[in-house]
Amino acid sequence: MKIGFIGLGIMGSRMAANLHARGHDLVVFNRSPQKAEPLVAAGAVAVNNPAAVAAQADVLITMLAHPEAVREAATGEQGFLAKGSAGTTWIDCSTVHPSFSREMAAAAQAQQVQFLDAPVAGSKPQAAAAELMFFVGGEAADIDRYRPLLEAMGRKVTHIGPVGQGSAMKLVVNHLLGTSMLAFAESLALGTGLGLSQNALLEALVGSPVAPPYLAAKRQKLATGDYAPEFPLEWLHKDLQLVARAAYEVGVAMPTSAVTKEIYGLAARQGLKRQDFSAIYRLFLERSLERPSGT
Amino acid sequence: MKIGFIGLGIMGSRMAANLHARGHDLVVFNRSPQKAEPLVAAGAVAVNNPAAVAAQADVLITMLAHPEAVREAATGEQGFLAKGSAGTTWIDCSTVHPSFSREMAAAAQAQQVQFLDAPVAGSKPQAAAAELMFFVGGEAADIDRYRPLLEAMGRKVTHIGPVGQGSAMKLVVNHLLGTSMLAFAESLALGTGLGLSQNALLEALVGSPVAPPYLAAKRQKLATGDYAPEFPLEWLHKDLQLVARAAYEVGVAMPTSAVTKEIYGLAARQGLKRQDFSAIYRLFLERSLERPSGT
Amino acid sequence: MKIGFIGLGIMGSRMAANLHARGHDLVVFNRSPQKAEPLVAAGAVAVNNPAAVAAQADVLITMLAHPEAVREAATGEQGFLAKGSAGTTWIDCSTVHPSFSREMAAAAQAQQVQFLDAPVAGSKPQAAAAELMFFVGGEAADIDRYRPLLEAMGRKVTHIGPVGQGSAMKLVVNHLLGTSMLAFAESLALGTGLGLSQNALLEALVGSPVAPPYLAAKRQKLATGDYAPEFPLEWLHKDLQLVARAAYEVGVAMPTSAVTKEIYGLAARQGLKRQDFSAIYRLFLERSLERPSGT
Amino acid sequence: MKIGFIGLGIMGSRMAANLHARGHDLVVFNRSPQKAEPLVAAGAVAVNNPAAVAAQADVLITMLAHPEAVREAATGEQGFLAKGSAGTTWIDCSTVHPSFSREMAAAAQAQQVQFLDAPVAGSKPQAAAAELMFFVGGEAADIDRYRPLLEAMGRKVTHIGPVGQGSAMKLVVNHLLGTSMLAFAESLALGTGLGLSQNALLEALVGSPVAPPYLAAKRQKLATGDYAPEFPLEWLHKDLQLVARAAYEVGVAMPTSAVTKEIYGLAARQGLKRQDFSAIYRLFLERSLERPSGT
Repeated sequence: MKIGFIGLGIMGSRMAANLHARGHDLVVFNRSPQKAEPLVAAGAVAVNNPAAVAAQADVLITMLAHPEAVREAATGEQGFLAKGSAGTTWIDCSTVHPSFSREMAAAAQAQQVQFLDAPVAGSKPQAAAAELMFFVGGEAADIDRYRPLLEAMGRKVTHIGPVGQGSAMKLVVNHLLGTSMLAFAESLALGTGLGLSQNALLEALVGSPVAPPYLAAKRQKLATGDYAPEFPLEWLHKDLQLVARAAYEVGVAMPTSAVTKEIYGLAARQGLKRQDFSAIYRLFLERSLERPSGT
Repeated sequence: MKIGFIGLGIMGSRMAANLHARGHDLVVFNRSPQKAEPLVAAGAVAVNNPAAVAAQADVLITMLAHPEAVREAATGEQGFLAKGSAGTTWIDCSTVHPSFSREMAAAAQAQQVQFLDAPVAGSKPQAAAAELMFFVGGEAADIDRYRPLLEAMGRKVTHIGPVGQGSAMKLVVNHLLGTSMLAFAESLALGTGLGLSQNALLEALVGSPVAPPYLAAKRQKLATGDYAPEFPLEWLHKDLQLVARAAYEVGVAMPTSAVTKEIYGLAARQGLKRQDFSAIYRLFLERSLERPSGT
Repeated sequence: MKIGFIGLGIMGSRMAANLHARGHDLVVFNRSPQKAEPLVAAGAVAVNNPAAVAAQADVLITMLAHPEAVREAATGEQGFLAKGSAGTTWIDCSTVHPSFSREMAAAAQAQQVQFLDAPVAGSKPQAAAAELMFFVGGEAADIDRYRPLLEAMGRKVTHIGPVGQGSAMKLVVNHLLGTSMLAFAESLALGTGLGLSQNALLEALVGSPVAPPYLAAKRQKLATGDYAPEFPLEWLHKDLQLVARAAYEVGVAMPTSAVTKEIYGLAARQGLKRQDFSAIYRLFLERSLERPSGT
Repeated sequence: MKIGFIGLGIMGSRMAANLHARGHDLVVFNRSPQKAEPLVAAGAVAVNNPAAVAAQADVLITMLAHPEAVREAATGEQGFLAKGSAGTTWIDCSTVHPSFSREMAAAAQAQQVQFLDAPVAGSKPQAAAAELMFFVGGEAADIDRYRPLLEAMGRKVTHIGPVGQGSAMKLVVNHLLGTSMLAFAESLALGTGLGLSQNALLEALVGSPVAPPYLAAKRQKLATGDYAPEFPLEWLHKDLQLVARAAYEVGVAMPTSAVTKEIYGLAARQGLKRQDFSAIYRLFLERSLERPSGT
């Protein structure tokens, strides 16, 4: 079975490398071709466009930045959903909104391509260590067939429900991720403002009943102020925009999520977009606003 | 050592009962005297006002609803901070803001009364089971002296720092409690709106890295819709108002906390104030707004 | 010059009637055909799909509920952007986001159709009285050519800039509309809560320096509680979602707008979506939340 | 009739100067005594504490920064509410919350001092030009007696209702002021982000039905980026905190107001507190966040 892999960013490059390391044949495409070089050096085949991936692969995996990038790869001028792709299966690991997953599933079906939405929980370290968690939407039989493939990249594969529900669960999770990180940043700002030491706060709160366990992995960043990105702030911001869109589509109000999105947006605008999303804490630090140019 | 206990609500009545059960002599006061009856039946002495408590006790514990109630009990017309109280120690377990704790400490010191702020983490079940956690502000020597007393009511006593820092830590914790519960309610609303079952969501999220562990204790309420209060919504709303006040006093911005406070406020206004704070989920359920009277 | 008019809802039906009343020949389409009947009775021609409109008209006007409806009318299976439409001009009066206007302009250009985005300020009464204001994006020459047409439906036609900028200005205006109405509702809730009469508040605030002048037109609704829709709450909610999307696309943070959107969303979910958007005030009235079914 | 004036900041100094210019005898006090010098040079008498003001004056006017400052001036160690003050009238022009006004009225009454709450609408230019608007709470007869005094400082004196209702109306007004300024800043950020010029936006929006008229007075600041304070951002932030407190006290939810407060708080923390509150626009400008010291 030959695997086509489209999208070799922070996440995709590590996921593809894990597939390759476990003996899978890979044909890959990335818009910036130099990102494919390490894989090619290791024996993968790189091609020039998504359609060329489909021509060689039995199963296609996409790991792209946003719905528009997925649509372009799938149905754009050189998209992989074309006549020649009939009979293949497409597993979309990108974070997108559920109605988009269903739209893509319909576009796939029109070309006799099976579709699974299989977004992941986890960021750079989990991608590298093949410890991602997959939330999968689609037919149980399809998922069982491709479970070994997903397990080559992660440690848990959960069938959530029909197409789109993998994406739904992913948005739910990232909403919790984004809101809790901001709330935690506010708690540090409050606590230190009230005279507690940041260390005492981290000691008391991380691992406590009121803080989500994933914060343990962010403690070092908050303690040292080194926000090298595992999950860049601008991606979380993007995911919260997808949450807002999905919530609107189904008529659900999410006031906390919405204001959280805008606070990350403000941080992005103030220069934090490429830092880890835990750098949102920096937005709350006291500082003297230098006069920006222009106004 | 005779203990005076002022404030016998959901929390205070259980805390006092635990002190009594562990052999401490109690003199108690509650504004509504009938709440003292079970303790009196068990052998405690009830008196008519806070000053009368101070006249008989070596140490005073207050567990009251808000700063104004504490101020009235301490410095009101029949308050316990009066000439006769010199030499006693006052342990305030109420949730208040840190500057208020410091104000009370100063008022106590003026009457030669030692002061500790010792608010608790935990709600009704933890109060009943003597499993509260105490965040204590004050002198280390004072805290060590009264540690056995606090341990009769809880399972962990942490010295946070000087006077006021127990209150500071408590506000930090309740900010996290309130924001995470609302964010979780939004995640359930989003997930069910997107077609996931509530049960699948609770199964996937409770106990996961992105959800605070305390939610396990709320799962049953969310699953059944029975929101019998452990920590009433109106109390959390009050605590978030104290958070907002404390944050303002030290110049810290807390956008998520602020909007969260108002959403609980809206829920309170719509009739949920005496349900458990996890009933905030009900605010997000679809419904037909009946025309309220008046307008 | 024959005018095709697509979309005969609250706004479109009145705008088309004004065109007809000023002597223009009309060919119309609405998805629910019975809405075309009054115009047909007055002499307009109704057809069965958007393509059939294009086949007969020199200029096409669309007034539809949201971008997806516009896309379907323009480029769907029986869309009006097809071979036969070359040489016509399409004026889109719908409220959409600017990038969508540009996308439609490109689709139009591909069929040699001129495009103007010309959304309107004003609601039902202004549509009826031909007192709408048009914010127009496109080429100045095109706008001048169709100015008389727009003036048959409104009292002011402003050329904002190139394609998409009409839509941009419209979103800016509706952001102000939505945020100010909610803030005003909050001010009435606060004032009456503090003991001021609603009448005294309306008297003091409407027409004052701190309230936008349009509120004069909402005063009667607020005073009587009769929220018959001029601009339904669900439309404003939709527009704020477009604002959020447009803001995200250009990297602008809008915390007030975002939380406002969710509060309207909550009101919509609580049964207010088909009332005038000023009914947002009802969300803040005290009430007893009846137990919703299900949970 | 001798007038005592306490509080000679941006507003108070100008108000006192207008009283003096209209022939009233003044005895003044300000915590930083040098602020009294211009008035003393013009013939006013300066004294060393509030009690000394009361000893010489028939009517006392306070114009102080916040409730705590008012409480200190009135009931502090050298406060003006003391035995000697019986028979005088106290007019508090400070912006405070209504329950505080009622608390002060009670404290005044205990010393046989009449109390009026008379906060003002208007900032530095209106104070200078004696064009303030007074919202007055208290007895009609008292207000009529002192109307000429207030009219020496302003152009409109409105009796709102009993004690506290002047303060209530003031908070309502400043809630509208703060929320609308932030919403307008967001609209400029959105519009310019979407490619409209700031000038086109100001031209289209200021004076339009969707913008409050007071914005005309802020247009120059927004256009030039010179935010010399008329109404400093930190004062508005303080007023919104009073709004939040008053709303909490009466059980009213104000989500927009709350998030707005925190955004001003963030701006204050980022160095904008002493600029005009319209400088909130600067928070939304794109910039590169320099690494703050510490973390």
